[in-house]
Amino acid sequence: MRLSRYFLPVAKETPSDAQIVSHKLMLRAGLIRQTAAGIYAWLPLGLRVLRRIEQVVREEQDRAGAVELLMPTIQSADLWRQSGRYDAYGPEMLRIKDRHDRDMLFGPTNEEMITVIFRDAVKSYRDLPRTLYHVQWKFRDEVRPRFGVMRGREFLMKDAYSFDLDEEGLKASYEAMFVAYLRTFARLGLQAVPVRAPTGPIGGNLSHEFHILADTGESALFYDAAIEDVTRDELLSADAATIARLTGLYAMEEEEHGKADCPVPPDRLRTRRGIEVGHIFAFGTKYSASMGMTVQTGDGGQVHPHMGSYGIGVSRLMGAIIEASHDEAGILWPQSVAPFQVGLINMRADDPNCTSAADDMQGRLQGAGLDVLYDDRDERGGAKFATMDLIGLPWQLIVGPKGLAKGVVELKRRATGEREELSFESALARLSSK
Amino acid sequence: MRLSRYFLPVAKETPSDAQIVSHKLMLRAGLIRQTAAGIYAWLPLGLRVLRRIEQVVREEQDRAGAVELLMPTIQSADLWRQSGRYDAYGPEMLRIKDRHDRDMLFGPTNEEMITVIFRDAVKSYRDLPRTLYHVQWKFRDEVRPRFGVMRGREFLMKDAYSFDLDEEGLKASYEAMFVAYLRTFARLGLQAVPVRAPTGPIGGNLSHEFHILADTGESALFYDAAIEDVTRDELLSADAATIARLTGLYAMEEEEHGKADCPVPPDRLRTRRGIEVGHIFAFGTKYSASMGMTVQTGDGGQVHPHMGSYGIGVSRLMGAIIEASHDEAGILWPQSVAPFQVGLINMRADDPNCTSAADDMQGRLQGAGLDVLYDDRDERGGAKFATMDLIGLPWQLIVGPKGLAKGVVELKRRATGEREELSFESALARLSSK
Repeated sequence: MRLSRYFLPVAKETPSDAQIVSHKLMLRAGLIRQTAAGIYAWLPLGLRVLRRIEQVVREEQDRAGAVELLMPTIQSADLWRQSGRYDAYGPEMLRIKDRHDRDMLFGPTNEEMITVIFRDAVKSYRDLPRTLYHVQWKFRDEVRPRFGVMRGREFLMKDAYSFDLDEEGLKASYEAMFVAYLRTFARLGLQAVPVRAPTGPIGGNLSHEFHILADTGESALFYDAAIEDVTRDELLSADAATIARLTGLYAMEEEEHGKADCPVPPDRLRTRRGIEVGHIFAFGTKYSASMGMTVQTGDGGQVHPHMGSYGIGVSRLMGAIIEASHDEAGILWPQSVAPFQVGLINMRADDPNCTSAADDMQGRLQGAGLDVLYDDRDERGGAKFATMDLIGLPWQLIVGPKGLAKGVVELKRRATGEREELSFESALARLSSK
Repeated sequence: MRLSRYFLPVAKETPSDAQIVSHKLMLRAGLIRQTAAGIYAWLPLGLRVLRRIEQVVREEQDRAGAVELLMPTIQSADLWRQSGRYDAYGPEMLRIKDRHDRDMLFGPTNEEMITVIFRDAVKSYRDLPRTLYHVQWKFRDEVRPRFGVMRGREFLMKDAYSFDLDEEGLKASYEAMFVAYLRTFARLGLQAVPVRAPTGPIGGNLSHEFHILADTGESALFYDAAIEDVTRDELLSADAATIARLTGLYAMEEEEHGKADCPVPPDRLRTRRGIEVGHIFAFGTKYSASMGMTVQTGDGGQVHPHMGSYGIGVSRLMGAIIEASHDEAGILWPQSVAPFQVGLINMRADDPNCTSAADDMQGRLQGAGLDVLYDDRDERGGAKFATMDLIGLPWQLIVGPKGLAKGVVELKRRATGEREELSFESALARLSSK
């Protein structure tokens, strides 16, 4: 993509209304643009990151055997009256009347809808277990939206729902999602702490939250330092032993920590702030019973399936990743979600030789399957460097007349600032191997 | 994907509330499920088709140089007050009050929002021309939703917006989108007729609708038979001559036809019904002027950019494709949007040899990069054939004990019903070359 034909409105100044670093950087780097309180447009660069995060989430859901569908944003209030949640849900629910004066709402979650879809389609034990998920925009009418996409009103969420014949089956589905979550966050370059959670308004008997450690997190966590020893490879393999070890280690939010007798010796107790990016619940027959879903068992009886629900805040993850990965100059995207892998800088767009060499390099980088953002504009080199550092692509490839005279280009690794002069062929080989 | 682990609730009976064939087939084939009047959940198979249609649309937008972003569904009424459309828009607009009693709405279109985003980011002629687009859920509160996704309330739309310095630039942007539309519909296997349109509530001075010819279309079209002579290859190459020829040929909706002096001799005048799947407008400075967007020109002056907007009904296209491509047994998906390319049928899931051979074939078909839906269930062959015909995958590969004894499988082409016995290696080679 040529920057001269792209839409990347970066800003030098820090926006005055942004309090936390991810919000500031997302506005400055032209990732998002607020269009109403707590509601954002995703500008082209931000949308690319959002789609990459979504794709990692999707791949791990698919890997866990979950099946994707897509439910609508607008729901009928009647659905929520069946479960009894319509009146129980607070003012965070965006309630709407349509032109025929029917009560509708913008879905904050989908337990009721998926229960009805499954109920009307599935009648036999042979169609269980099944986990269905979707990635869809949700709305929660926060009284005081803040921190950019971290606590917005319209946000993108992955929510999965499992259906099992019995409690044992539910436990297996819950663990499969637990594994998917550990893998998802590890692939996104994040250290996530699973915290045993109170179950809250969704109800049920087993629940974990997944928190990213960051100073700007809204929750105070208390946990066993041994959690930090679990390696990325262990999280990616996520076998039964790793899960048993992780869930066996103490981790609580402040409120629950205060209540519990803490089993962790003081020298191993850590306290840090966390950003909640995922939440899983095993709630059993709450919805299947209240909404009249039964399936026939092998011996001809009828049972209410046992259900769980499993959420990941996809848009919030972008903020969490930036909180965990930035420096003074801007964002440092992990390779797995970077909007482009390479920023190609033409230092002298007014020099035909330099431009011709840079054009050629763009074609060859793209030919090697790399996503390239090519700064072909006629601007000063300093401004181009600042923009590239701000938007945080993993690699910068700099083409200038002095280097070309020597037959070299400069390759800069954004995360470390390391720069190296090398032939274009070597640079291409290096980048292609990443 | 194994059907035993998928979620594909097909129905034998025709749903009583569906009037047109695409609506009936989408419900029967388990593509969609109504969750409220005019609001649908996209079941896994339907979602796969929707994503494929969306991807064809996206590729042609990108090819035309448009840049993708994503605007939110919920908009502030203040935006629409700036353009004067808040009061002008009818009861199709879903109006909402948030918890602070602010007027919001579920976007039916995005002229206002994109104008503000562009206005606040772009100040110089050097950043023009630019075309931005997004693919997002829209809501229009139809008084009488019907025909399934063809006239639903929540629907997926691609809408693009172009910004040019002057009218000549706008004409070029409009033509680039015209080409993208011709290519998009041709790739989807559809014959689209561009109809010169009155401009309606979006305003402006040049507009075309794109209609798919189908007996169930809501519009009556009158057009020059020569339009049917334009070939798919001509549409895909869509050079200036093709466009001049197409736009020069007479095509009008009934109401406009009645008004005009028709230049087409009676023997060349065709009348058929059409489904509107796209609509493009060049409306000039309507929004840039009313919403105060100016850019600096090369000589230091200020101008209001000339704009156009360009919509495609992505979810509606699924209905239109089915209207254009089905038979008595079910859907016939064009290759470009088929949810899977191959339906693999194990005729005897209770026979270990047959199952082992079918399992092996699934692995090898997927290894060759083919999307396979594998019916591995222990059901009668007749039911499996009926399901595969109903869901309309381009190819069926049938593995049964008799064939295996002879070393052959059966390959069926869904569109023609042709069946052929051949070795598995030959079948794999045949399918891989498609």
